[in-house]
Amino acid sequence: MNNRHGRFITLEGGEGVGKTTNLNWLCEQLTTAGIPFIRTREPGGTPLAEAIRGLLLNRGDETPADITELLLMFAARAQHLARVIQPALNAGQWVVCDRFTDATYAYQGGGRGQDQQVIEQLESLVQQGLEPDLTLLLDMPVELASQRVDQRGQQRDRFEQEQQAFFQRVRDAYLQRALEHPLRFRVVDASLALPQVQAQLTEYLQPLLSEWMNEVSD
Amino acid sequence: MNNRHGRFITLEGGEGVGKTTNLNWLCEQLTTAGIPFIRTREPGGTPLAEAIRGLLLNRGDETPADITELLLMFAARAQHLARVIQPALNAGQWVVCDRFTDATYAYQGGGRGQDQQVIEQLESLVQQGLEPDLTLLLDMPVELASQRVDQRGQQRDRFEQEQQAFFQRVRDAYLQRALEHPLRFRVVDASLALPQVQAQLTEYLQPLLSEWMNEVSD
Repeated sequence: MNNRHGRFITLEGGEGVGKTTNLNWLCEQLTTAGIPFIRTREPGGTPLAEAIRGLLLNRGDETPADITELLLMFAARAQHLARVIQPALNAGQWVVCDRFTDATYAYQGGGRGQDQQVIEQLESLVQQGLEPDLTLLLDMPVELASQRVDQRGQQRDRFEQEQQAFFQRVRDAYLQRALEHPLRFRVVDASLALPQVQAQLTEYLQPLLSEWMNEVSD
Repeated sequence: MNNRHGRFITLEGGEGVGKTTNLNWLCEQLTTAGIPFIRTREPGGTPLAEAIRGLLLNRGDETPADITELLLMFAARAQHLARVIQPALNAGQWVVCDRFTDATYAYQGGGRGQDQQVIEQLESLVQQGLEPDLTLLLDMPVELASQRVDQRGQQRDRFEQEQQAFFQRVRDAYLQRALEHPLRFRVVDASLALPQVQAQLTEYLQPLLSEWMNEVSD
C-alpha cells in the first residue's frame, strides 16, 4: 500500500517570465524521474473553478469590487483544493500548479493594493494551514518581462492590460513573499538564458526528489 | 438636497411560502406611499452576481464543496452590496430584497449543516456591520409549503430538490435567526389566507413608513 503523501510544487511569477516553458520542462523532469504527478493551474483546475476563472478574467462591463474578486479567487481555490489538489496529494501524487495563493498576495495585494489582512483571513479559512512544499518564483526585471509579453503578440486579458507600475508592485510583492517564507520559496533568476534557468530549477528541485527517492527505498 | 438614507427590507422564507406574491404586494404598497425603491434579489442583483448565481443553482456534474458554495454566495453578495444596495441606500432609495444573509444561515448553515462560524466570518468581512432594517420572515409548516411547490409543477433547481428533513432544518434555522435578532425580524404566519398575511405585513411595515414620513415633513 502506498501511504506516501505527494509533494505540492507551485510556480509563480509575473507575465512574460517564462512560466509555461519552465512548467513544461519541470513536468518532463518529473516524468523522467518516474514520479506520479498532475499538472494544474490557478485560478481554475476544475470545471467549476475554470468557470469562476472566466468570470474573473473576462473583460466585461462590470468590474468586480475588490472584495468580490478576492472571494471569487478563493472560491475557485477552495474547489480546486477539495476536488483536485488534496485528493492527488493524499493518493501520493505530486501536484505541479501554475500559480497559487502567492499570486493573490502579489496581484490583488501588491498590484491592486487590496487589504492583505483580508487575503490572510481567506487563506486561513480555505487552506487550513496547507502550503506548497516548494514555490519556484521566476523573477526578472519588469521591463524585460514586458518586452517578452509584447513579442508574443497575443491579446491581453484584464490582468495583463495593467500598467508597468502595477507589474513593479506585483514583482515587489512576490519578492517580499519569498523573504517572508524562505523555507519553501526559491527565487529563480529568469532573466538568464534558458539552460541557466533550468540549472537553477534542477538545483532547487533536487532536495525534494532525493527525499522522495529515499522514501521509496525505505 | 436629499440626505436621507433609504431603508433596507429583506423578505425571507423557504420554498412555497408565497415570497413572490407578497414581494409584489409589498412593492405596490411602497409605490402607493410614494417611496422611491428598488427591488432586487439574492443571490444575484447585478450581471456578475447573476452569473455567480448561475454557477450556484445549475445542476452540473460538479458539486461545489461547502466552503466553495459559501465563498460564491458571499462573492455575489459583496458585488450586489457594492454596486446596487449601498448606492441605492445612499441615494435615499429603499431596497426590497428577495432573500439575503439570513438565507445563507438557513440554507447553508441549517439545511446543509455548514459551519456557522465560517458564515459569521464571511458576513462580517463582506457586510462590515450592515444589516437589513426590517426582515420579514414568511413562515409556515414544511408540509404545507411543499404541497404548494408541487402545485406549481415547475422544474426544481438544485436547492428545491432537497428533501423534507432539509426544509425542516431550514425553517428551524430561520426561526432561530428571528429569535436572535428580534429588533429587525418579524415572523409572518404565511399559512393564513392572503388578506391576513398582508394585514401582518402592513402592520410590520408601518413603523418604517411612519418614521420615513416624519423625516419627509421635517
